[in-house]
Amino acid sequence: MGLIVQKYGGSSVADGERVKNVANRVTECYNAGNSVVVVVSAQGDTTDDLIAKAMELNENPSKREMDILMSSGEQISMSLLAIAIERLGFPVVSLTGWQAGVETTSAAGNARIKKIDTERLKRELDKKKIVIVAGFQGIDKYDNITTLGRGGSDTSAVALAAALHADKCEIYTDVDGVYTADPRIVKTAKKLDAITYDEMLELASLGANVLHNRSVEMAKKYNVKLEVKSSFERIDGTIVKAAIDVEKMLIRGVTRDNDVAKIALIGLADEPGVAFRVFSLLAKEGINVDVILQSIGRSNTKDISFTVTKGNMKRALEILEANKSELGANEIVHNDEMSKVSIVGAGMASNAGVASTMFEALFDAGINIHMISTSEIKVSVLIDQKDAEKAVIAIHDKFGI
Amino acid sequence: MGLIVQKYGGSSVADGERVKNVANRVTECYNAGNSVVVVVSAQGDTTDDLIAKAMELNENPSKREMDILMSSGEQISMSLLAIAIERLGFPVVSLTGWQAGVETTSAAGNARIKKIDTERLKRELDKKKIVIVAGFQGIDKYDNITTLGRGGSDTSAVALAAALHADKCEIYTDVDGVYTADPRIVKTAKKLDAITYDEMLELASLGANVLHNRSVEMAKKYNVKLEVKSSFERIDGTIVKAAIDVEKMLIRGVTRDNDVAKIALIGLADEPGVAFRVFSLLAKEGINVDVILQSIGRSNTKDISFTVTKGNMKRALEILEANKSELGANEIVHNDEMSKVSIVGAGMASNAGVASTMFEALFDAGINIHMISTSEIKVSVLIDQKDAEKAVIAIHDKFGI
Repeated sequence: MGLIVQKYGGSSVADGERVKNVANRVTECYNAGNSVVVVVSAQGDTTDDLIAKAMELNENPSKREMDILMSSGEQISMSLLAIAIERLGFPVVSLTGWQAGVETTSAAGNARIKKIDTERLKRELDKKKIVIVAGFQGIDKYDNITTLGRGGSDTSAVALAAALHADKCEIYTDVDGVYTADPRIVKTAKKLDAITYDEMLELASLGANVLHNRSVEMAKKYNVKLEVKSSFERIDGTIVKAAIDVEKMLIRGVTRDNDVAKIALIGLADEPGVAFRVFSLLAKEGINVDVILQSIGRSNTKDISFTVTKGNMKRALEILEANKSELGANEIVHNDEMSKVSIVGAGMASNAGVASTMFEALFDAGINIHMISTSEIKVSVLIDQKDAEKAVIAIHDKFGI
Repeated sequence: MGLIVQKYGGSSVADGERVKNVANRVTECYNAGNSVVVVVSAQGDTTDDLIAKAMELNENPSKREMDILMSSGEQISMSLLAIAIERLGFPVVSLTGWQAGVETTSAAGNARIKKIDTERLKRELDKKKIVIVAGFQGIDKYDNITTLGRGGSDTSAVALAAALHADKCEIYTDVDGVYTADPRIVKTAKKLDAITYDEMLELASLGANVLHNRSVEMAKKYNVKLEVKSSFERIDGTIVKAAIDVEKMLIRGVTRDNDVAKIALIGLADEPGVAFRVFSLLAKEGINVDVILQSIGRSNTKDISFTVTKGNMKRALEILEANKSELGANEIVHNDEMSKVSIVGAGMASNAGVASTMFEALFDAGINIHMISTSEIKVSVLIDQKDAEKAVIAIHDKFGI
């Protein structure tokens, strides 16, 4: 018995049958004596369909109007879920972002939740109602509808769980939990019972694709206990929390991210401020840089290599080419057939041999490493994309996960 | 130059091309120096599609949740229109019912507009923006989204025109104005340049199907000048206003309404309170009765005949059969193959010969009259449905409209 926030993604409510399935799961949780708040995304392809309609009219619509358009997708799915729950005979009410008190910044298309005014939510819960809330949306201080950008519904769910001091926030998805590696690649991959926020953050940013980083960061900040689980199967998922009691496993997981392009600036002057000039040019255009490597070149020059997402490579190259002489680069090279393979585990920080074991696994498999990046709880290597699956399997086997 | 409210129905914004057409018309009006507020309905079949989705889940959904679901249809069309107008390079903002300050009663599915808080609307107009408003919707005092029921978007447009003291409210539709008869039936039907509110009210309730009565009543109450015109052709429509300067035409139009069923109670006791008992039974079930005729029967009994819509006939018969002995009726008969044909004209009140001219036209055409009902500005007859088209043509010709 407690207060549970459940979140169902777009594929979990894609059609009538799936909406009925979600209605059953929600009412089971309510019947077990819990107060239940449910966050839903737009149904299946709704968002893409709405975007296509807009693009037919205008290839460059304002973010404000796109936010209004997109937010209707969650408004549809939340009312449909409420209607399905009414059919089962339970008290239910659906609320849009603004009705649920979700106040955001004014950054249309990528707003941040500033505050949740829980007055209405608490009033409905006090009436013993199941409360359905539209994910991904809120309003800014000017009463404009805003959306939260990628992974927005996860963030909505965690923010609601934090504001309502929920006992747990359950994220229902296509997969039944967080695995030590992608089970489609590594047959011996195992589902984790539990994982820390920090490990999850590294896994998410490294391409594990289960929870969006913003939601995990918020869960960590407000200490919201998360559970990632399947919306189709009735089995335990993976708990995400602050600390794990028994720290048996050194490595929590192996991940692969194919959305990586490498750019290298060759022959830069070896003088202060060069790196700053390069990366401030990219930051001004909103291009995020991931791994950065700087090396001393020949004859008093240095080389800077870094990675961006594949979608940003063309724009990054244009900016750098336009400023090539100012930056003093001899040559700009790029490669967009790369992958980043990473191992993550909180136990790694106190165990020096982890990185070298990983490198040994790659050497044994005959895989060349282009770049290396490490943090307290992860080691990432940049390799050719064609070697990525082989690398994940080799590392997973080597650590005997 | 002035403030114009334009309303476009669902067929006017049914697809991308039509949305672009509306965007052109709106910006032409703005370019002519006007402030422009545009009210839109949901695109084409959107509302029906949403209803079908709900019915798949629950055949008896709550009106509250249906209102949320349906209101997303206008939210989609308003943002798409704004996006199309942005493409043309004009300043524009779209507002949902609640953002536009439309406050309604709590009667979900059939709410009435109580008040429009014009603060936000005026602020956007002061910024020289074209303002798009979702029709058909508002919020009640508990911040629940409500819809206005049939003809709701027309009512939204007139209410906004009244609240903003607009110079004109233009209702764009499939037809290019109000005609003296249905042009599909009467080839010689003529478009009216102007018509009074009262005439329009009679025409609307008699099946002319151009403007919803609620919107005309509101326009009359607040003296909002309406114009009904085509969203496809660029020609003048029909003005609806308080009084028409030159009252040349005696008859403003001939209409036909096929949604009529007749019920007759035969052999009721000729005593006080019989009619009250019959119609209070029907009123309790929300069944509206239109034409009523009472006649003296044989041997101290009376007969009561009345009409209802075809959809209400079955229910009305059930109620009356269940109370047949209490009402003291010998027999209950019905006929759902009837039509109501009417003539409307404000000039009629001061001209006694109008009704008899109409009856003469029907007699010449060999058409039998079942019931007659008259008001200050209209005469209606109930005839067999098979004769309805012939009757409209005969009357239209007789008056030489």
